[in-house]
Amino acid sequence: MRLKGKKLKIAVVGATGAVGHEMLRVLGERRFPISELIPFASAKSEGKTVSFMNESLPCKTLKKGCFLGVDIVFFDASDEVSRDWVNEALSANAIVVDHSGAHRMSADVPLVVPEVNGETIGSAKMVSGPNCTTAQLVMALKPLHDRFGLTRVSVSTYQSVSGAGTRAIEELKSHQGPHVFNLTPQIGSFDQDGVTSEENKVMQETKKILNLPNLKISCTAVRVPTLYCHAEVVSAEFSKPIDAKSARKVLAAFSGVVVQDDPELKLYPMNRTASHQDPVFVGRVRKDPSADNGILFWIVADNLRKGAALNAVQIAERMIDA
Amino acid sequence: MRLKGKKLKIAVVGATGAVGHEMLRVLGERRFPISELIPFASAKSEGKTVSFMNESLPCKTLKKGCFLGVDIVFFDASDEVSRDWVNEALSANAIVVDHSGAHRMSADVPLVVPEVNGETIGSAKMVSGPNCTTAQLVMALKPLHDRFGLTRVSVSTYQSVSGAGTRAIEELKSHQGPHVFNLTPQIGSFDQDGVTSEENKVMQETKKILNLPNLKISCTAVRVPTLYCHAEVVSAEFSKPIDAKSARKVLAAFSGVVVQDDPELKLYPMNRTASHQDPVFVGRVRKDPSADNGILFWIVADNLRKGAALNAVQIAERMIDA
Repeated sequence: MRLKGKKLKIAVVGATGAVGHEMLRVLGERRFPISELIPFASAKSEGKTVSFMNESLPCKTLKKGCFLGVDIVFFDASDEVSRDWVNEALSANAIVVDHSGAHRMSADVPLVVPEVNGETIGSAKMVSGPNCTTAQLVMALKPLHDRFGLTRVSVSTYQSVSGAGTRAIEELKSHQGPHVFNLTPQIGSFDQDGVTSEENKVMQETKKILNLPNLKISCTAVRVPTLYCHAEVVSAEFSKPIDAKSARKVLAAFSGVVVQDDPELKLYPMNRTASHQDPVFVGRVRKDPSADNGILFWIVADNLRKGAALNAVQIAERMIDA
Repeated sequence: MRLKGKKLKIAVVGATGAVGHEMLRVLGERRFPISELIPFASAKSEGKTVSFMNESLPCKTLKKGCFLGVDIVFFDASDEVSRDWVNEALSANAIVVDHSGAHRMSADVPLVVPEVNGETIGSAKMVSGPNCTTAQLVMALKPLHDRFGLTRVSVSTYQSVSGAGTRAIEELKSHQGPHVFNLTPQIGSFDQDGVTSEENKVMQETKKILNLPNLKISCTAVRVPTLYCHAEVVSAEFSKPIDAKSARKVLAAFSGVVVQDDPELKLYPMNRTASHQDPVFVGRVRKDPSADNGILFWIVADNLRKGAALNAVQIAERMIDA
């Protein structure tokens, strides 16, 4: 592609948010080829600066023509911002990596976790990254599906407050807000069947990414009083016989997954050890005694890293290389 | 029975613990017919007092003959204490309500949640109460099973630190210890298959209490940074067709269960509202899109109340009445 091997002009929309903040960090850590980085934020953040590679950059606000000359625009803001401004970026001939939920389910937009379905990027000018909860789930399901043939998934989530933004982090840190010593079984809004938007995202996006439109899947999403990382209890059923040992082996061989699973050493994934880390950590792998070809396991990953910023940067790296 | 209508001499073993503390409160609240209450604690609590009905009572230590003249002994201490001292109580002709795990699975000891299987008490001199996580689970499963025929259950737990004792509560309150902003997917010890003792308790005790020895059941138990109440995501499958509305109706009609389920009002069970309450709260009831006759729901109950002290006192009330 025309961008390969060049230093690029990058825009990050939503640069002052929790994902945007992590995005700047990941771009720096991975030595993304950047000639200029332009942080965009909402009008209420006007005058704020963000830090990138030890430089302090003033935030700009979105306006007509703001993406002229930009090579890649990362959208890390609301669905509404993406809906309103993605075309502005595309018509400026920038490529777009959208982390919002606005375009994920559009048939003509690839929804990508690079290790899982990077090949669907093709020559797309715009790619969506999935919901944070979906990203870590499909990372574990993909290698298991390839080997054992996934037929059914049920997931219960334990989602940290960083998924709700920087304010929620600060509140919980200072022991305030609705999440102190409390669990909330609602993330997003309810549909007419009493299912939340977060739960619908996980179910629909998992089917799209794994290219299994008829997959049987259920999800219950719960906010818990942790700061970073989402955790998931997963029960998964397969068409072929499966046992814990072979499941662990297949998981450990998959790029981006780290198996932490040794009961004798009390080794299993936890928020404390997974926070600010790149991999998706999987443990507590064992037979599901209630299903013939079923296993149970526990996934923990940093929702701001593989669940958001890291995945978006990995998508951009693939788009540049394409 | 010989105890009906009399004021009784009661012993509480483990009176300084989290469950023992709640036990004294519940006995007072329910105006249990007490002539004398004797709190027992370990040697290291010697000299400590506990509060009961505005009276300060000195703790005694267990010794040969300590239960002479006692009518009912509540065991709210470790499995080891129950194993060592239950016979002392029975040979003093006291009746025993054991909350420990020591005798729950013995074929000759009824394992009881009164609303669910109170009839199994019969003329037993000793009755066990289940693990806190089991108690609230069977309260929701029983009415659903009676109406729809339970075939499979999968449960993911969100268990508060009060299940680990008073020290864990104090630690988390003062923002210390391993549970601050962290999830731990291990409660109890691991068996050779990587299943924890807590998970095995939930599976085995549920089968015994529901009298469904071949029930397909799986459990993943996780400690979360909340103080009071255990929460559970449950997916349950049935032999008969089931929908959310009829499930809610059956649940709401069951004594001890309160349905809190109105997405429009953002009404669902939470730790904040369920703490220090007697009922088992159920919400988020909806069809399981991954199973033909399946529903998903969310249970929250105070693990020290229905999960422990309240259930034990209810058992004693039934034993007196028998």
